[in-house]
Amino acid sequence: MKSYSIALLPGDGIGPEVMREAEKVLAVIQRKFGLNLVLNQFDVGGAAIDKHGHALPEDTLKGCEQADAILFGSIGGPKWDSLPLDQRPERAALLKLRSHFDLFSNLRPAKIYPGLEALSPLRADIAASGFDVMVVRELTSGIYFGQPKGMAGEGEEEYAFDTMRYSRREIRRIAKIAFEAARLRGKKVTSVDKANVLVCSRLWREITEEVAKDYPDVALEHIYIDNATMQLLRYPNQFDVMLCSNLFGDIISDECAMITGSMGLLPSASINADGFGMYEPAGGSAPDIAGKGIANPIAQILSAAMLLRYSLGENSAAEAIENAVQQALNDGYVTAELLSAERRNEAKTTAQVGDYVA
Amino acid sequence: MKSYSIALLPGDGIGPEVMREAEKVLAVIQRKFGLNLVLNQFDVGGAAIDKHGHALPEDTLKGCEQADAILFGSIGGPKWDSLPLDQRPERAALLKLRSHFDLFSNLRPAKIYPGLEALSPLRADIAASGFDVMVVRELTSGIYFGQPKGMAGEGEEEYAFDTMRYSRREIRRIAKIAFEAARLRGKKVTSVDKANVLVCSRLWREITEEVAKDYPDVALEHIYIDNATMQLLRYPNQFDVMLCSNLFGDIISDECAMITGSMGLLPSASINADGFGMYEPAGGSAPDIAGKGIANPIAQILSAAMLLRYSLGENSAAEAIENAVQQALNDGYVTAELLSAERRNEAKTTAQVGDYVA
Ligand SMILES: CC(C)[C@H](C(=O)O)[C@@H](O)C(=O)O
Ligand SMILES: CC(C)[C@H](C(=O)O)[C@@H](O)C(=O)O
Repeated sequence: MKSYSIALLPGDGIGPEVMREAEKVLAVIQRKFGLNLVLNQFDVGGAAIDKHGHALPEDTLKGCEQADAILFGSIGGPKWDSLPLDQRPERAALLKLRSHFDLFSNLRPAKIYPGLEALSPLRADIAASGFDVMVVRELTSGIYFGQPKGMAGEGEEEYAFDTMRYSRREIRRIAKIAFEAARLRGKKVTSVDKANVLVCSRLWREITEEVAKDYPDVALEHIYIDNATMQLLRYPNQFDVMLCSNLFGDIISDECAMITGSMGLLPSASINADGFGMYEPAGGSAPDIAGKGIANPIAQILSAAMLLRYSLGENSAAEAIENAVQQALNDGYVTAELLSAERRNEAKTTAQVGDYVA
Repeated sequence: MKSYSIALLPGDGIGPEVMREAEKVLAVIQRKFGLNLVLNQFDVGGAAIDKHGHALPEDTLKGCEQADAILFGSIGGPKWDSLPLDQRPERAALLKLRSHFDLFSNLRPAKIYPGLEALSPLRADIAASGFDVMVVRELTSGIYFGQPKGMAGEGEEEYAFDTMRYSRREIRRIAKIAFEAARLRGKKVTSVDKANVLVCSRLWREITEEVAKDYPDVALEHIYIDNATMQLLRYPNQFDVMLCSNLFGDIISDECAMITGSMGLLPSASINADGFGMYEPAGGSAPDIAGKGIANPIAQILSAAMLLRYSLGENSAAEAIENAVQQALNDGYVTAELLSAERRNEAKTTAQVGDYVA
């Protein structure tokens, strides 16, 4: 029997309650596909600060190192927002995990599910034209991590500075991921940059052109970030894979998520060169609805499916989960935010949706 | 009689044809308000490259220096896209003019005009909730101009780098502009940053908080850039003035422009500490429709109105233009892209709209 170990990091807000549903689903997968999935839970984020004084305790990091993959919930909340930048959950845990494991490849699929067009904030005719994008975001370089970063100067001339930085190697490896992804999808990569202003973007363009030569079956287009945010609103169905640097991918992937209008359905994967990865819902910790049993567990469940596919290579198990989720959607067996006002009273709880999918 | 000199820089694409309509309107203003407006035209952009070998010839720069304000058309097009970064119209002319005159304050109003809700790419109920935003973008610092910027290293480790940089003074002066603007509008400033990642954004937050103390009548909120792109789609009417750094303002202002669905109506102003400014339509040079007489001249005409208000202090002249434009919109006397498919045959030409407003 194949055996895998998965580190579970539920985190803050709705993290713990949606994680429970993903665990239910993994328990069924285990039996059905004859796998031995060892799940070990660790503290992270604000919860870890409260308990251990640090958003990413040593134990948690060790636990992740020993695992085959990480299933992550969500972190952060107003309670920890006033901490110094370096101690906050986002930097101290999330960015730390990304860089520690060199999780450079961030996959953020976003699509309007058939039947859920009305949830999109886009005009009915535009939403009806369809939207199914995979944002491939570089996650361990760029202005998030570039050095130097700091303050200098005095008085009113004192200034802050951050460095955006990309090497040929860093661009090449993420570009390859985008072209590989496009090959399995719509065969088109749209590379997002600001090449009329940034030197980093000029190099980005040069390397993506080079990589494109190895993928003659995939079309490559370049678009400026400002134009991309516009085109997504007007002609969203022109995109297939969107290749972005760290900062631009942060912006574009959130815009794409909002365009679907169903953030609670969107998983994401952050993977390194060895296939080790961290999987988490696209949405945040949503402290306002935490503990009420109304959070949508599907993004967390689909994150577990991505984990099975990308880190464990268990494609049929991943597909089984995705099919079960599609079934729940078809049957209208969903949480309140996916239902129209008239049908709100048919809403299911977090646990009910988890049970149904399981 | 008050006399002012205005440098006209029509540029490329639809620039020249929409500029002609702004000139018509200024000629009427001149008579009606007893002003002497001396209009001098200069080459800029791709047109200047073709004629003089440089996107911003010495003569043009001199002409601008001698003027009280610049009325700018639009520049760029596929013909000049393959030039080296530093020679391209965008960098060599547009960014050069911004930095040469220290035009740090970029005002980009965007609103859904009553009656034109159907043009917005947002869902009908969201567009109907209203949208009227002033994006205040810092325009002469940040990652556009920060030094150092370049390439270093060797082989696959060769890397590109850009520097994002903001001083206390630079942030303070643009923040003040935003609060002043909010005072004349909805009394709310939403400052857009990425303070969970960027040192520049931390300083940005600190200074905007300081400036806010001098404006107790104006509310201040902070929002992350990724969340801002989302909120704009779902709850666009929550915003009044959006205060942004150079790069974030580029992205947010274009998203706002697209949300209106009527880019051809949107002017912009770029102003320095002395009130000298450059005024231009929010849209681009639109080479695909250039020369056909179908381009919407209203953004150019409203840019002239902003020029009268912000650089010349001629508020009633500015209002007269804005009222005339509103009248043209009310009367449905507009170019094709503002009309529904059924009414397309009532479309007016560029010149007809200009005449009507004049
Ligand atoms: C929390 C924040 C640092 C993070 C990011 O910007 O990467 C988040 O927005 C995301 O996209 O995962
Ligand atoms: C052309 C380009 C350099 C410019 C910018 O990014 O500032 C444009 O997009 C704008 O917003 O005026």
